[in-house]
Amino acid sequence: MRQRRVIVNALRRSGSVSTVLTNSLPRENPTVANAVPLKKRVLIVGGGFAGIAAARALKRADVDVVLVDRRNHHIFQPLLYQVATAVLSPAEIAAPIRQLEAKQKNLSVLLAEVKNINNGARTVEVACPGVGNRKLEYDFLVIAAGMRPSYFGHDEFARFAPGLKSLNDAETIRTKILNAFEMAESTDDEKERARQMTFVLVGAGPTGVELAASIAQLATVTLRRNFRKIDPAKSRIVLLDGGARVLPTFAESLSRKAAGRLAKLGVEVSTGVKVEKVDEQGVIAAGARIPSATVLWTAGVSASPVVKMLGTTTDRAGRAVVGPFMNIAEAPDVFVVGDAAAITQDGHPVPGVAQAAIQQGRFIGQVIANRVRGRKDGRPFRYRNKGNMAVVGKNFAILEAGHLRSSGFVTWLIWAALHVLALPQLQNRFRVQTQWFWSYLSGQRSSRLISEGPPPAG
Amino acid sequence: MRQRRVIVNALRRSGSVSTVLTNSLPRENPTVANAVPLKKRVLIVGGGFAGIAAARALKRADVDVVLVDRRNHHIFQPLLYQVATAVLSPAEIAAPIRQLEAKQKNLSVLLAEVKNINNGARTVEVACPGVGNRKLEYDFLVIAAGMRPSYFGHDEFARFAPGLKSLNDAETIRTKILNAFEMAESTDDEKERARQMTFVLVGAGPTGVELAASIAQLATVTLRRNFRKIDPAKSRIVLLDGGARVLPTFAESLSRKAAGRLAKLGVEVSTGVKVEKVDEQGVIAAGARIPSATVLWTAGVSASPVVKMLGTTTDRAGRAVVGPFMNIAEAPDVFVVGDAAAITQDGHPVPGVAQAAIQQGRFIGQVIANRVRGRKDGRPFRYRNKGNMAVVGKNFAILEAGHLRSSGFVTWLIWAALHVLALPQLQNRFRVQTQWFWSYLSGQRSSRLISEGPPPAG
Repeated sequence: MRQRRVIVNALRRSGSVSTVLTNSLPRENPTVANAVPLKKRVLIVGGGFAGIAAARALKRADVDVVLVDRRNHHIFQPLLYQVATAVLSPAEIAAPIRQLEAKQKNLSVLLAEVKNINNGARTVEVACPGVGNRKLEYDFLVIAAGMRPSYFGHDEFARFAPGLKSLNDAETIRTKILNAFEMAESTDDEKERARQMTFVLVGAGPTGVELAASIAQLATVTLRRNFRKIDPAKSRIVLLDGGARVLPTFAESLSRKAAGRLAKLGVEVSTGVKVEKVDEQGVIAAGARIPSATVLWTAGVSASPVVKMLGTTTDRAGRAVVGPFMNIAEAPDVFVVGDAAAITQDGHPVPGVAQAAIQQGRFIGQVIANRVRGRKDGRPFRYRNKGNMAVVGKNFAILEAGHLRSSGFVTWLIWAALHVLALPQLQNRFRVQTQWFWSYLSGQRSSRLISEGPPPAG
Repeated sequence: MRQRRVIVNALRRSGSVSTVLTNSLPRENPTVANAVPLKKRVLIVGGGFAGIAAARALKRADVDVVLVDRRNHHIFQPLLYQVATAVLSPAEIAAPIRQLEAKQKNLSVLLAEVKNINNGARTVEVACPGVGNRKLEYDFLVIAAGMRPSYFGHDEFARFAPGLKSLNDAETIRTKILNAFEMAESTDDEKERARQMTFVLVGAGPTGVELAASIAQLATVTLRRNFRKIDPAKSRIVLLDGGARVLPTFAESLSRKAAGRLAKLGVEVSTGVKVEKVDEQGVIAAGARIPSATVLWTAGVSASPVVKMLGTTTDRAGRAVVGPFMNIAEAPDVFVVGDAAAITQDGHPVPGVAQAAIQQGRFIGQVIANRVRGRKDGRPFRYRNKGNMAVVGKNFAILEAGHLRSSGFVTWLIWAALHVLALPQLQNRFRVQTQWFWSYLSGQRSSRLISEGPPPAG
């Protein structure tokens, strides 16, 4: 019971999103006599879990906060795979970051992309679309820029195998999947039909497993009786991974249960398999070619290129190596939080999950608030793992929290409740809940839209 | 009361969408002895109101029906302006056309674009994306391909002033509007800021009026307290029209009431004004330039280019001139229905509205069903106008049905109820209803997403 509550609390903090953007124009000359002491400026880059949590934690601090993101919306990443498989609409897992200004007076939001960081001058150059470049000054800098798909040095795979990080990615994948069935129906070539009906997922972490199970159910339930020539239920869904088992961050017993569930859904799992090539015909793995029109990349991620602009030490995945107060070695007032930060605890890396990002964002907000008030830093950051979950299709999820392990239908209900509660904006909680309820009963999915226009390259 | 019921019935027929696609492969050689008599093939081009209604009307007919559309979804056009102004999500007013196959056995759906029509050989060449061209044979051809924005010979305006016909258009407009406020906030140039906060709509028909009112409420209510430097309520919304009054298809008294409501919402209406130029800086109208970053084209429409492929007589807007049974003069078995058909009744053109499209689609389905059974054609098509409505923001709509005219809050409630009932798919009715309820109470809008990627040219 306690376990459950801590997870609820951990997740719901991302609940109603909240953010910050200071007036970033050059200020009046501060040397003028009788000038009111200027507020410290906190610049946060990234409106994901970590950035939003940091901004919210500064709500009562005597600072001006600017939150910069190149997108106008915060997204609830854990349910992104459901947008990619037509269960949910993009807006249902998103909230406009700017809306936070209405709730937090010391915050302003700027739609812009970071171009350059100068630690010495304490400035960040950003490009505002349609307006041009601007230089923002800061006293504290928080980089919460997240990760993007990484192809382990094979960037040429990107064109054929999209990853899943943004709403745009999710819509690209949804269109790819739905188009594959349309093409299988239109073609007269049996080989091509088989290729269109083969879906390959590279990487059996939570995203790969969730996507594979969701595609399997789309094919067998939702699309049933929707075609005349093909039987979508005969689709082949292949989940590849170089490691020894699916969901390797979970206990082996749970991993085995998830694999069993995937098999039951008709997903072919191949572990210990290295993908050598991805091209327009499909993949080559373990020396054999799997013809496939839909290859999805759920394997590696690397840090946003913004991290590199800090000029600090990074790990292999491009994450900034930070100290116990999440700051980089070169500057005590420059912090990296969330997935883009590499920090170890008790010899283990802190995982790149939502709850770690939220905890770090909140932590750093408090550190800054303390420093502004002239107080000393408190205790260093400590990640409290409240438990991890993964879902494998309808009616089945796994949960590991401390020594507690559970799987099955009840765990799935808990998963569903937690994720609804954690969604940004009350309205979205209501919408997702009704969508799920309807989808559960009918097997239908509400967003079977093939988007128009050329799919974005990469 | 009766008036109200007939409108409900007229609209709700578009209710649960339903469609048709025959096996369009070349058949077995029919000269083989003892061959079972082949079913007649009906080919419908377009999955809008007219095409869907025609397919449904053929449900019990002994025919093979193929419905071809280049999009995989039917959309409920009357609410498209709400997707363009972030009130609704694209999926909420759409339904996958293919889903109809599950409900109608003699129907198959093909995702393809029409490339060529040969009336003599009774074939239609289509391009299936990713698969290639195919030739479909037909015994009856129904063209229900609809309209697209028309710039009266000024196609160069298209780049700067998108029209509103597809979900893609709606997302383009939504992104343009939301981006304008972001840019107004980012820029330091007062002139540019004013330009970004000026929205010009060309054409004061129902779409122009609905969009203008919805943008006004977005600016004054939804975005309130969401910006630090700009006050969105100070946006300028200009509605231009070459004619003498807004909503010219309605009675003059209703037109005047709508204009009064627009003025109350802060929309500047200029009638009798000709737009001479649209470029990236804005519009030139009546000799004066209005600097604007967001110009929307709600003026003219012309028929889909598919109509031209028929080689029949067309009117100025490219619509096929059809006879009393909706067929073209050259071929008694080739029909044009919906907005793309030009037909007059009692000396007046039948308007391009949803109810006319539905009535024509249903009519032609019955004509075909009759002919297949060897029966004579019944009475020619007759449009029964069950009344027209237009909405002007929150709490205000106008209704004209025969001699009945009403406007105001109760009319708006009727408008809302009718449109919810008419939505395709039960689930969408539920979703839109809750969205509206929430939006009505909170003033918030649920889909404030700026889409990524380059906006499509034109």
